Amino acid sequence: MTLLGERTEGGRLRAEHAGETVRLLGWIQRRRDHGGVIFADVRDRSGLVQAVFNPDMPGEGFARAERLRSEYVVSIRGRVRLRPEGSENGSLATGEVEVVAESLDILNRAKTPPFYIEDDLDVDETLRLKYRYLDLRRPEMQEILMIRHRVTQIMRNFFDAHGFLEIETPMLIKSSPEGARDYLVPSRVHPGEFYALPQSPQIFKQLLMVSGLEKYFQIVRCFRDEDLRADRQPEFTQLDVEMSFVEPEDILPLMEELIALIFAGTTDRQIKTPFPRLTYREGMERFGSDKPDIRFGLELIEVGDLVAETEFKVFANAVAKGGRVKGLCAKGAAGLPRREIDGLVEFVRTFGAKGLAYIVLTQEGVKSPIAKFFTQEQLQALLKRMGGKTGDILFFVADKEQVVFDALGHLRLELGRRLNLIPAGVLNFLWVTEFPLLEYDESEKRYVAIHHPFTSPMEEDLPLLATAPQSVRAKAYDLVLNGVELGGGSIRIHRREVQERMFQLLGLSREDAESKFGYLLEAFEYGTPPHGGIAFGLDRLIMLLTGKDNIRDVIAFPKTQSAADLMSQAPSAVSAKQLNELHLKTDIVRAKIG
Amino acid sequence: MTLLGERTEGGRLRAEHAGETVRLLGWIQRRRDHGGVIFADVRDRSGLVQAVFNPDMPGEGFARAERLRSEYVVSIRGRVRLRPEGSENGSLATGEVEVVAESLDILNRAKTPPFYIEDDLDVDETLRLKYRYLDLRRPEMQEILMIRHRVTQIMRNFFDAHGFLEIETPMLIKSSPEGARDYLVPSRVHPGEFYALPQSPQIFKQLLMVSGLEKYFQIVRCFRDEDLRADRQPEFTQLDVEMSFVEPEDILPLMEELIALIFAGTTDRQIKTPFPRLTYREGMERFGSDKPDIRFGLELIEVGDLVAETEFKVFANAVAKGGRVKGLCAKGAAGLPRREIDGLVEFVRTFGAKGLAYIVLTQEGVKSPIAKFFTQEQLQALLKRMGGKTGDILFFVADKEQVVFDALGHLRLELGRRLNLIPAGVLNFLWVTEFPLLEYDESEKRYVAIHHPFTSPMEEDLPLLATAPQSVRAKAYDLVLNGVELGGGSIRIHRREVQERMFQLLGLSREDAESKFGYLLEAFEYGTPPHGGIAFGLDRLIMLLTGKDNIRDVIAFPKTQSAADLMSQAPSAVSAKQLNELHLKTDIVRAKIG
Repeated sequence: MTLLGERTEGGRLRAEHAGETVRLLGWIQRRRDHGGVIFADVRDRSGLVQAVFNPDMPGEGFARAERLRSEYVVSIRGRVRLRPEGSENGSLATGEVEVVAESLDILNRAKTPPFYIEDDLDVDETLRLKYRYLDLRRPEMQEILMIRHRVTQIMRNFFDAHGFLEIETPMLIKSSPEGARDYLVPSRVHPGEFYALPQSPQIFKQLLMVSGLEKYFQIVRCFRDEDLRADRQPEFTQLDVEMSFVEPEDILPLMEELIALIFAGTTDRQIKTPFPRLTYREGMERFGSDKPDIRFGLELIEVGDLVAETEFKVFANAVAKGGRVKGLCAKGAAGLPRREIDGLVEFVRTFGAKGLAYIVLTQEGVKSPIAKFFTQEQLQALLKRMGGKTGDILFFVADKEQVVFDALGHLRLELGRRLNLIPAGVLNFLWVTEFPLLEYDESEKRYVAIHHPFTSPMEEDLPLLATAPQSVRAKAYDLVLNGVELGGGSIRIHRREVQERMFQLLGLSREDAESKFGYLLEAFEYGTPPHGGIAFGLDRLIMLLTGKDNIRDVIAFPKTQSAADLMSQAPSAVSAKQLNELHLKTDIVRAKIG
Repeated sequence: MTLLGERTEGGRLRAEHAGETVRLLGWIQRRRDHGGVIFADVRDRSGLVQAVFNPDMPGEGFARAERLRSEYVVSIRGRVRLRPEGSENGSLATGEVEVVAESLDILNRAKTPPFYIEDDLDVDETLRLKYRYLDLRRPEMQEILMIRHRVTQIMRNFFDAHGFLEIETPMLIKSSPEGARDYLVPSRVHPGEFYALPQSPQIFKQLLMVSGLEKYFQIVRCFRDEDLRADRQPEFTQLDVEMSFVEPEDILPLMEELIALIFAGTTDRQIKTPFPRLTYREGMERFGSDKPDIRFGLELIEVGDLVAETEFKVFANAVAKGGRVKGLCAKGAAGLPRREIDGLVEFVRTFGAKGLAYIVLTQEGVKSPIAKFFTQEQLQALLKRMGGKTGDILFFVADKEQVVFDALGHLRLELGRRLNLIPAGVLNFLWVTEFPLLEYDESEKRYVAIHHPFTSPMEEDLPLLATAPQSVRAKAYDLVLNGVELGGGSIRIHRREVQERMFQLLGLSREDAESKFGYLLEAFEYGTPPHGGIAFGLDRLIMLLTGKDNIRDVIAFPKTQSAADLMSQAPSAVSAKQLNELHLKTDIVRAKIG
């Protein structure tokens, strides 16, 4: 029998195991000496259990126990017994029992670790990342990796049961940056040429549909060389799905079923399906967001028609110039100190709003710097539309449409937090549909794709491609949970002429389109079925499942915001031989040497 | 109801479905007109079924059917009926039935493809790779991808059931080439520095053991920038496994169980376990190979002791100089023409042998250029040892040990093929154990690791590390199937001092060891459990399961031997902007421009 063959997971021992002989394999969490007896908590993946070493142990056992220190690796044979009355430890799952050691082998020693191996650690993240292998010894980190494993198992078994094939797509692909920046990989065999690491398997999964494979999925690593935000990593994992002959109605319910399975399989949460749906337009008008948090109300209210003819020029002019005026009614917030209101004025400025008008409805009547510009009738109409009652504050922004949405959308979230409007423990899923296909990028002076260049326009909007591209809606959909985008997808373009028109709108010359995407355009000519799909960010899903707000906590070996691995010190300088073989030179190395 | 929701997989229709109304979605395989009626075979992932279009179809159906060509994408509603007697097609699974179309929609048209979409295609592989999305429409290619999916599902469910966690390790790692060449990825944020793509997750999986995660697996992409052989790809997929507290006895039986499950789940083959085991030494002595094909005998036979004192100087001198003399007895091969024997002499030269001696045992007696150098007693002793009977040929090589093994090992395989000794349809699995830890590389003038630098020496050989490193055996094992290496692994070093000694033997300076692997050495000091693991090449396993001898046939989007993707034209030149952002210059681009 091998060590592992005889092994008992210590963390699973309970009163019912008293009397059994067990072998523990694990790490010493801590050692205490008490009345000539040595006690040690032994930790393994399953948890902690207390081992007891008596001076009358056979052989060298006790002498070895005296040398034990934290994080020593041990093999202990012993007998489980109930702890003496009064010495039970209610805070430990194994607290009713202990293992009386009959033999002890020290499998490896340990230096004192740079931080304690325990949850709720208060230590600099830099140190945790440098010693990631110690950080991952902590039960909460192991729990996250177990949940992550469970989620991918559930996904794979789900798609397998639904007839999907997991098909691996290449990692060394052609660079065709459209959106984010590619990571490049120099080719040695073709000097001066480069591969790119995939930002997603988008084109390959579409080609698998051209191949007639019909139902594809993959849990796959993707790469983006972008300046990192707190919730981004240079390499990230995506659940990637594509199906042929589909409409959104085939994809959305399937994903809802999967999400419900994942939550049921890893938490005790029952997720109600189907999820509500909102068009992009509705999301913007009601919540000022394309990923609305619908856990609370505080919706944006249209007042443009009521203020267009008033003496308040800020409002009237906005409407006259084709802009919008919308408001929020913050219930019971009339007591908000003036200082805090001023803070909110500053807050909306960061989203481009030139100002934030407000009306406080106090017991003593309306208090507002703008009330004097309205007639009594106009004011009453406004209060009525806004649903304003004594004790409320009304906020208004008048500006270009996008600024109104953006400023009020963020103000809504901010007020939701400040006024404690967001119920704890609620999971509100939402599909957002009918996204615009394109938006105009002022800096690049061209249209850019909101999802990606392969997203299909809605049939009924096809004529607008020629006349009003910015009004064309896409067959695109995002899944939003509590205001966070979990994933998104679309029905794809499957005709060459539409794809060419799209590239043209995005400012790609015919030559560029041909050299970057010619093989896809050609593939479309050989009998391409209608197809569509979706992708979910796995890391973000695990964050939501485990309640973590740091993406690095849900990845075994993450990178910092400067894309570095603090443990292994990657990236690093490489040898001149390596660079010569690739026919590469870097300015920087020369500068360092020179 | 959506298109897909109503859909019937045409390839599954049988006589029992006659009378049912179905909707087919698929591709036109071919169209025939016969007696004013149009027949078309409709292909989807499930197979082919015949559709019939009568001129009296409602609406535009028949007019559309007249426009059908191969590879058009169609949606057909119709009724299943038994084919008229005499028109059944026995070569088609659906050959008893046909679908009488009631409506036809053409979902997309198709140009004439560059090759037929059918199995046993006789077309240049270059064309297949350029139009990979069409090549993947062929049933045999789809079958391979389905088996590949099934294999990874079986693996994942197997490891999950055994308490393993699938944990993702990074793709952007530190370059520490030791063996093969790394693919490099320039860093933009840290100009002049590079990541490497992993050749395997070796160090990360060991660190997960340091973390106490105990049982890890991953199906993971790996990369090697090497000149490619026929069965290699620059990116390949590996099943990667690691466990703590283990001996080979924990790992080998587990892998046998997995292999048996995979064969049972994807073929009708029952695999008998446990697999036989052979030490490396025994493999070399008996088969001249570290991956012996044990489907047939023809073992190498020791004759050094018998020839040491003979007059045949070639043999006697070899023994005197510490070399070896071994032979093969090719049963019933006495009739081999002289020309073919001469060919075998040439054959062994390619493996470094200076010659190939032989003795033909004919009805008329011994015929051999070397017989005259032996006394009658010596010759009889030799024939007896070799088991030579009338009708056999005996072959001998005398040389340095490694040359004898190599030449006779390959001669054995060659004779096995020529003499039809290899039984068809047999799967002979074999573990090879106790590999040497190191071999001396004459060109680099240093020892190199046979498996990798993290492999543990056998305990009993530890003292030899100082005195005779080349004699140290490793706790390493390979799984061999029919003479092909399927995978391999080892128990790892888990003590800093042993790992440092190993790096030293490999010629790494203390500084180099520290800068490349310092974090691993440090990790070993914080309580590292004994651990070990194994890795299998997934691509090669799928080749063996599907009987393919071309690795490109088991990968959806493979690369050529010059590491190019002929479909998308990767690698390719990138923009000056991309290179500038990375602070990179290449000689080649300048040369092309200048």
